Amino acid sequence: MFSFKVTHTHGSARRGEMHTPHGVVQTPAFMPVGTQGAVKAVTHRDLDALGAQIMLSNTYHLYLRPGAERIARLGGLHKFIGWNKPILTDSGGYQVFSLAARRKVREEGVTFRSHLDGTEHLLTPEKAVDVQSQLGSDIAMVLDECLEHPASHGRARESLGRTLRWAQRGRDHFLKARGEEDGPYCFSNHAQAQFGIIQGGTFPDLRTASVDGTLSIGFEAYAIGGLSVGEPIPLMYDITEHTAALLPTDCVRYLMGVGTPVDLVESVARGVDMFDCVLPTRNARNGQLFTSQGRLNIKNAEFADDDGPPDPACGCYTCRHFSRAYLRHLFQAGEMTAGTLNTLHNLHFYLDTMNRIREAIVFGTLEELRQSYRRIFPAQPADPT
Amino acid sequence: MFSFKVTHTHGSARRGEMHTPHGVVQTPAFMPVGTQGAVKAVTHRDLDALGAQIMLSNTYHLYLRPGAERIARLGGLHKFIGWNKPILTDSGGYQVFSLAARRKVREEGVTFRSHLDGTEHLLTPEKAVDVQSQLGSDIAMVLDECLEHPASHGRARESLGRTLRWAQRGRDHFLKARGEEDGPYCFSNHAQAQFGIIQGGTFPDLRTASVDGTLSIGFEAYAIGGLSVGEPIPLMYDITEHTAALLPTDCVRYLMGVGTPVDLVESVARGVDMFDCVLPTRNARNGQLFTSQGRLNIKNAEFADDDGPPDPACGCYTCRHFSRAYLRHLFQAGEMTAGTLNTLHNLHFYLDTMNRIREAIVFGTLEELRQSYRRIFPAQPADPT
Repeated sequence: MFSFKVTHTHGSARRGEMHTPHGVVQTPAFMPVGTQGAVKAVTHRDLDALGAQIMLSNTYHLYLRPGAERIARLGGLHKFIGWNKPILTDSGGYQVFSLAARRKVREEGVTFRSHLDGTEHLLTPEKAVDVQSQLGSDIAMVLDECLEHPASHGRARESLGRTLRWAQRGRDHFLKARGEEDGPYCFSNHAQAQFGIIQGGTFPDLRTASVDGTLSIGFEAYAIGGLSVGEPIPLMYDITEHTAALLPTDCVRYLMGVGTPVDLVESVARGVDMFDCVLPTRNARNGQLFTSQGRLNIKNAEFADDDGPPDPACGCYTCRHFSRAYLRHLFQAGEMTAGTLNTLHNLHFYLDTMNRIREAIVFGTLEELRQSYRRIFPAQPADPT
Repeated sequence: MFSFKVTHTHGSARRGEMHTPHGVVQTPAFMPVGTQGAVKAVTHRDLDALGAQIMLSNTYHLYLRPGAERIARLGGLHKFIGWNKPILTDSGGYQVFSLAARRKVREEGVTFRSHLDGTEHLLTPEKAVDVQSQLGSDIAMVLDECLEHPASHGRARESLGRTLRWAQRGRDHFLKARGEEDGPYCFSNHAQAQFGIIQGGTFPDLRTASVDGTLSIGFEAYAIGGLSVGEPIPLMYDITEHTAALLPTDCVRYLMGVGTPVDLVESVARGVDMFDCVLPTRNARNGQLFTSQGRLNIKNAEFADDDGPPDPACGCYTCRHFSRAYLRHLFQAGEMTAGTLNTLHNLHFYLDTMNRIREAIVFGTLEELRQSYRRIFPAQPADPT
């Protein structure tokens, strides 16, 4: 049920289609983040209208509340949240490493305390598989160790070793669970795919080793993890380019947690097919809009009497109906609608960027798009290549 | 440009059409409250889809932020907030009496300090006219004195005297300003109507005096103020019935700040044509839904595994797509979308109630509707009549 095919290429960039049990995703694709089963400040019908093809949801949050067993009982995540398009869930590892308290990493897995109620939990590679099976997402991620930045070569190599051992355990458990008639949980999605994650920090030789090890385990597709964690952006692009080039051409490539609009274009040019990031939604709630003229902080006093749209070149609901002055007023007044209208715009900008990217690959104009995005967002570091 | 005609009657209930510069309102009508130029948690297109015909906005809030002069410069409230249907603005008085600090009432007007920044302001009957002219709403309300509850007959009579003197000043200023070629502010809505407000507390004789005095000043239409402020509900219905019966049959009648679903049906049966209330929107954000089976507190633990819709009889977006379990999860998780989905449902319930009321008047079945709403919401006090 899960498959991927490349339909066009342009340099290292690929235009493709990813088939999942809940529909087709045109790639390169951006996944809005619905941490707790909802993309903050907007409704599913808003996402549909914006052309969102797939949502990312966070296993850590859903596992703690309302609980994966409850979601399984209620028919799986799609049914529970009322979203019938594809869903990718992460392994929960990243949030355990970034949000949870008193975490201890052992070979078996990670113990941590819930940031909600302090209860103690153990996340193992097998548990990450089980919980995501209960959720029934279309794409499950294997549990990896999230390396701190900066990390020495020695520390990164050691961590990579654990990530590879966890990957093998996660894959074994994933395949075994699917072979069982009466598993420990009800499957709402028997055709779930599992992606491996390439780690190795900022070291090309370790990234190469990670690709070798992960490919030899074998997953439906592969993600590039451990980037956008504080390293210089040129280095992020270098590692992305190095890693993507080593991955199979017939598998979708997912760059986790990235990024800015320029990052999207730059990474697609280096062979990436999928992205997720909280930037468009989180920044929207903080009043920052991504526009065809660059970033715009709607709370700035200069917009108090500005009756122009946030982005004159934009066709989103917000830009067609509301002025900068009104959006600034809503933000200053603390109205929830400020978050909604800003989020609608930013997601439109991101999803429209992906549309432009897909067209540019087909028409061979990706370099022009890349130059254009680098002009629009000049605050981004210069192209590393 | 402003007019009202009754198209059907059934007992004291009236089915009508109110024409305003921004369109027709089918009455009886409910006005969602958009305090700061936005109905909390939903977008204007949501309101459109729900069939909202007219929005109420609060002069006090808009005067303080972003400022009425700014809104006038930007073309008036409709243009500023991007809402092209009718808007009613209150006089600002109620908020001055309930929100502002250090308020002092004198014959000239009310001095108060802003709840936002402590600045001192003076609201007079003339100022209330000026500010609403700057806003350019379709219906402006005259400034009245908001009487505390309970109040003695003497206190209520004294307050009514001031309200009538303020009404005369407000009306004089309203008519004079419209006659001026170069007023002190730009009009974005020359066809604005002004409603008088009937006060008199819980005393029928004072309500009668208030109607006499206010009618002799003469407004486009009349509101019943000073109810739903803590008095017993049967008394509220009695005063509503007494007052509505004294008002001209050819003017729309607006019962301010009311109320529950039962209040709507009961008050229409007593001759009321228009309502506004924060109940559906505020309660939604607090997790309380109005349904065909009564009130439902979505945060209750009993709904954690309930995969049924909030209201099986409801056709709103929320009820068609989401379960009680999901809505409870969103509420518990503090997701903004909880407020949005609950608000969509509650406003649908209120606006659908008005639809049913309008049909019931035409088909002569209002008594059945009234009985049905009293069964659904039994927590409401028994019918006072």
